[in-house]
Amino acid sequence: MNISSRIPPKIAIHSFTNKPWNLAECLDRYQKAGVPGISVWRNLIDPAEGGVGLEEAAKRIHDSGLSVPALVRGGFFPGTTAEARQNAIDLNRQYLDEARAIGAEMVVLVVGAVPGQALAESRKQVCDGIAALLPHADATGVKLAIEPLHPMYAADKSCVNRMAEAREICEALGHAKVGIAADVYHIWWDPDVEAELRLSAKQNTLFGFHICDWRVQTRHLLTDRGLMGDGCIDVSGFRRLVNEIGFEGFHEIEVFSEDYWARDQDEYLALILEREEACRPAN
Amino acid sequence: MNISSRIPPKIAIHSFTNKPWNLAECLDRYQKAGVPGISVWRNLIDPAEGGVGLEEAAKRIHDSGLSVPALVRGGFFPGTTAEARQNAIDLNRQYLDEARAIGAEMVVLVVGAVPGQALAESRKQVCDGIAALLPHADATGVKLAIEPLHPMYAADKSCVNRMAEAREICEALGHAKVGIAADVYHIWWDPDVEAELRLSAKQNTLFGFHICDWRVQTRHLLTDRGLMGDGCIDVSGFRRLVNEIGFEGFHEIEVFSEDYWARDQDEYLALILEREEACRPAN
Repeated sequence: MNISSRIPPKIAIHSFTNKPWNLAECLDRYQKAGVPGISVWRNLIDPAEGGVGLEEAAKRIHDSGLSVPALVRGGFFPGTTAEARQNAIDLNRQYLDEARAIGAEMVVLVVGAVPGQALAESRKQVCDGIAALLPHADATGVKLAIEPLHPMYAADKSCVNRMAEAREICEALGHAKVGIAADVYHIWWDPDVEAELRLSAKQNTLFGFHICDWRVQTRHLLTDRGLMGDGCIDVSGFRRLVNEIGFEGFHEIEVFSEDYWARDQDEYLALILEREEACRPAN
Repeated sequence: MNISSRIPPKIAIHSFTNKPWNLAECLDRYQKAGVPGISVWRNLIDPAEGGVGLEEAAKRIHDSGLSVPALVRGGFFPGTTAEARQNAIDLNRQYLDEARAIGAEMVVLVVGAVPGQALAESRKQVCDGIAALLPHADATGVKLAIEPLHPMYAADKSCVNRMAEAREICEALGHAKVGIAADVYHIWWDPDVEAELRLSAKQNTLFGFHICDWRVQTRHLLTDRGLMGDGCIDVSGFRRLVNEIGFEGFHEIEVFSEDYWARDQDEYLALILEREEACRPAN
């Protein structure tokens, strides 16, 4: 089935969505299906995680002709020692280099948290960590996108859990390379989400936009996301909103799901594209 | 072990914490251990859920001498039809009667949500539902405590997910019988939580205060809570704060945990009381 003529030019898929595929398989299948973009998770690059290495990855991605909205993921700035925090900054510098090498617009930041450390202190460390990266963001031309994570990840993955908190960091740093990756999974429940998305667009900080769905009977905190239409999020409404407020980036499909990973990935990709079309707004 | 001399007068346990015990067992064990209060879940009362019936429950609770901060739980106001919403209001009137019968100070409201219905609409229906209960709250002398539930329950259990949203309903209704039950499990991650607790105390709406812990590696969205000390919440800090701002109600221990339910409940009760003492603030 070649459905490439139906897919809008600003649709991307996060490689982790098709976790069973390696980089070559993702690129091949997305390209054949006419998917215009891929956000690349580092496990497909880093040899320590089974990836092909940066040089090979960059070549393959370039040859595929696919656009790369994001390298996923950097962040994890908070730490209990100055050394740990410096290590995180150094790693994120490396990720900026990797992003430039593969032609990614931005590095998505899952900002981190330290269990038991006050969230206010972690938030300060996040702000400091991102500040330390700004010269290298300028040097590489790669943007840094803070992704607010659902409050159920506040213990150890992210001390930034709402759009408002990400905005406050953006405002504190006031730098053109620092913005937000808004993922409907994390922010759909927030009464302020529409106002914050509008404000982010106005402040030119809306860098990324991720879509999936929240399953009403979620069985696992990490790996039970739904594909658009499986749950209760008004994904079409969110897509209409970001279009309306002038967002021109990719609508990135990002689903972590043991259920879907267990399926035939070619059939799953076809389903992903059906679901994308089903929640595609008219505007 | 009789440790009653060590337990402060404003400590209570939610009966669901010791789910394997029936009402008689909860009352007997708490009384023998010197636990001053019990918040009673309806499953121990309602014969349809295996409970002993209201008259018998009221007699046993009265005879136990235990205080009853709360009947748990009412709410679930939103519905897609006027009939469903009216049924919810009628049920909550019954719960107010039950609360009066067992001598409970308040009914805890898990306000509800309808999967797929806009959260803003559900929030409006919650406000309307509580408004309809006010005359009966006055008639029974029982308070209504809105419990903000963690955002991971926004799909179907609660469209009120932060202290701020509960406060907005309290402010809209402006009635002395409407307030908030603040549970650290649901609100600990919120950057505004301290300011909102202070405001709630100032507005005389801080009716209830529940404690437990958030396990860093939470395995289940409903039944994997930690006992104080098992996780990353600064429970002692929260207890110190509510004492400082003049809260004089019970510190209610409420833990849903398959792990703990599988243990010997007498040993578990002893552990609960050890942990309560370990996070007891000096003030």
